[in-house]
Amino acid sequence: MTDATAFADALDAVRFNADGLVPAIAQAEGSGEILMMAWMNRDSILETLSTGRVCYWSRSRGGLWRKGETSGQMQRLKEFRVDCDGDTLLLIVEQDGVACHTGRRSCFYRAWRDGKLEIIQEVETDPSVLYGQSGGHHGHSHG
Amino acid sequence: MTDATAFADALDAVRFNADGLVPAIAQAEGSGEILMMAWMNRDSILETLSTGRVCYWSRSRGGLWRKGETSGQMQRLKEFRVDCDGDTLLLIVEQDGVACHTGRRSCFYRAWRDGKLEIIQEVETDPSVLYGQSGGHHGHSHG
Repeated sequence: MTDATAFADALDAVRFNADGLVPAIAQAEGSGEILMMAWMNRDSILETLSTGRVCYWSRSRGGLWRKGETSGQMQRLKEFRVDCDGDTLLLIVEQDGVACHTGRRSCFYRAWRDGKLEIIQEVETDPSVLYGQSGGHHGHSHG
Repeated sequence: MTDATAFADALDAVRFNADGLVPAIAQAEGSGEILMMAWMNRDSILETLSTGRVCYWSRSRGGLWRKGETSGQMQRLKEFRVDCDGDTLLLIVEQDGVACHTGRRSCFYRAWRDGKLEIIQEVETDPSVLYGQSGGHHGHSHG
């Protein structure tokens, strides 16, 4: 059990939504690339701050989502930031491998160019390698 | 009236939430600094893509929020990206002045260090200059 009092200052600054969640942006240390956006609840913040390994809350699975638990693509927390309103978090992370379940470094691989959405980032790791032959969305959910 | 058909490919990729909104991260072109996170609806996306000036949806005011309309701190859209699930947007922007209503460049100016939240970015522009002597939160709302 994590001692919440040690992290009271951080938790007090967060304004959770009606579902007890707050959006968290993951940005790669060094390159500054935005890797993904996911959600955190109180417990996932506590676990992340106490272990240094990023843990989100999966809305679709309704449980803690320890990033990389299935895929091996962990995120190590380098810095935890809170915005002015306390309703968004920014996590500066060291990303093992790729952040996106499609095998791309970043989830933001589609850009609006010349009147259409273009794919601007290639797959680096085959999703079947990340998740086994069943593939798909297992272990990764922005939901 | 903006011709939505010209932007159908972008709109079709977005998965709006039950309130018809999607979170949008603003990142500074060049430096890669994360400036803020706010919300967009269909109309604000259309206006942003068609004008090249970033327009959010203010949840607290219940209306379009043309960033910089009051403060002068406009955001010019450089690139519009959609994530793998379509439920988060990334806007690469050229920011006039500061993004945060506190007069700081970024809204993410508090970082968890040594067991407490520290302010890691100074005020660049007095909010009374941005919003007049009434000051405060007018014209800026993440809500």
